[in-house]
Amino acid sequence: MSELTLEAAKTIIETAFAKGRELGLKPLAVAVLDSGGHLKAFERADGASFLRPKIAFGKAYGSIALGAGSRALHARAEQQAYFINAVNALADGNLVPVAGGVVIRDAQGNAVGAVGVTGDTSENDEACALAGIEAAGFQADTGA
Amino acid sequence: MSELTLEAAKTIIETAFAKGRELGLKPLAVAVLDSGGHLKAFERADGASFLRPKIAFGKAYGSIALGAGSRALHARAEQQAYFINAVNALADGNLVPVAGGVVIRDAQGNAVGAVGVTGDTSENDEACALAGIEAAGFQADTGA
Amino acid sequence: MSELTLEAAKTIIETAFAKGRELGLKPLAVAVLDSGGHLKAFERADGASFLRPKIAFGKAYGSIALGAGSRALHARAEQQAYFINAVNALADGNLVPVAGGVVIRDAQGNAVGAVGVTGDTSENDEACALAGIEAAGFQADTGA
Amino acid sequence: MSELTLEAAKTIIETAFAKGRELGLKPLAVAVLDSGGHLKAFERADGASFLRPKIAFGKAYGSIALGAGSRALHARAEQQAYFINAVNALADGNLVPVAGGVVIRDAQGNAVGAVGVTGDTSENDEACALAGIEAAGFQADTGA
Repeated sequence: MSELTLEAAKTIIETAFAKGRELGLKPLAVAVLDSGGHLKAFERADGASFLRPKIAFGKAYGSIALGAGSRALHARAEQQAYFINAVNALADGNLVPVAGGVVIRDAQGNAVGAVGVTGDTSENDEACALAGIEAAGFQADTGA
Repeated sequence: MSELTLEAAKTIIETAFAKGRELGLKPLAVAVLDSGGHLKAFERADGASFLRPKIAFGKAYGSIALGAGSRALHARAEQQAYFINAVNALADGNLVPVAGGVVIRDAQGNAVGAVGVTGDTSENDEACALAGIEAAGFQADTGA
Repeated sequence: MSELTLEAAKTIIETAFAKGRELGLKPLAVAVLDSGGHLKAFERADGASFLRPKIAFGKAYGSIALGAGSRALHARAEQQAYFINAVNALADGNLVPVAGGVVIRDAQGNAVGAVGVTGDTSENDEACALAGIEAAGFQADTGA
Repeated sequence: MSELTLEAAKTIIETAFAKGRELGLKPLAVAVLDSGGHLKAFERADGASFLRPKIAFGKAYGSIALGAGSRALHARAEQQAYFINAVNALADGNLVPVAGGVVIRDAQGNAVGAVGVTGDTSENDEACALAGIEAAGFQADTGA
């Protein structure tokens, strides 16, 4: 299994921010977690509000905790809100069930971490996460 | 970036109370938070019930935490209750998604704090918040 | 039993701040709670750090919750830290066992609320609380 | 009051890591918080264990929450453990009372944020924090 290095995490963040600028998005916050759900690197752009660190973390945490991008959690929340509420209690509240959280997989398909992006629409947030994961040479799993 | 002084916070509270008396509203509670979501000043009118401090705080906290007045949170709650539930978990329960929480912005548009008003209808609460912010010389962002 | 009005609470805060200026103290935060332990009024001076609201509240909360000023909690903490820890768990963490929290009593000795002051040394904080309570025409119970 | 930009936060982290390499320290984790105690940027070196993000955050959080570097909290903990326990409850457990958390002050002395470093001894951690703050052009307040 490959490991997610700090170098790779920084590439993901830098590329996600670059994608946000390219698309003209609002100020973003980007969190990268390791396979154990622990923070590896994080950056919050100037102007992004202060709950963004927790939202970015929560999108990534829910993704790596359940092994699928937060888009899958979103779909489940639309159908069974009580299930997501129950899982969120187990996750100590660290779960944000909308798109923008993406599992990072190596060439063999192993989950090596997750990235969470927040600040613009969920769709745009996810596009930035995908750009970052690709730039770092990993596979993205959005949960779609 | 301007700073929200205690003097300005007190002007906001006094003006909000005056507006409430002018409109003949029920007893109000008014909380003013700084840009980090921490309490700067608070007053609860005689006759306002004891959960009002937390409700006033929660309207303001959700507003400054996400960078938009609580009217925006209300709209999101109507569409995606599970999202607001998830963010509320991140906010340790300090989020009240109805109108009456308003972001305080300086002339350059920077968020310098937020005010939360509770005690009457959400619409009336918000009107008092707006009067207070204007009297202190700031711009109001209701999230509308 | 007398009731603690907002007017009285504001007198306590203003007088406490005036006492702090007179003594040349650091920026203070002052919380006034009603007999149920709920916030009535609060002000944080410019320059006081952001955990001060919770510390001021905690000094007052522990005082009114146990019916004696926080000086008594301090003495108990020095002797039986485990007891204060246990009570703090019951109080959801809202208890700060050092001087500066003072019970507000009416002429008949009824506890009508409490004030908590923080920002300088515990001794100085308490002196400001005492000045405020006296100015509002109530009796102070420091727990000594 | 100056604002702590993401650019400055990244300079602090990069310089702290460089100092760690220069001194031959163990793998470090470095957190930079804004004046409201919210995460601005974070990096964890390869090989640093997974609780390091919370420890780095906690050193910085306690510092900015109380307005003095975590060295001051350490001294207080040695004298009044129950006081630090009580404040930690107010801080939801986010307080680590040993050196390595340093308040970032601008030229006028305003607290604009804090940095927390962990991974080696507390003394070495603090040395890295100081190097970072100096490189970013701010003043350091260790609480000494």
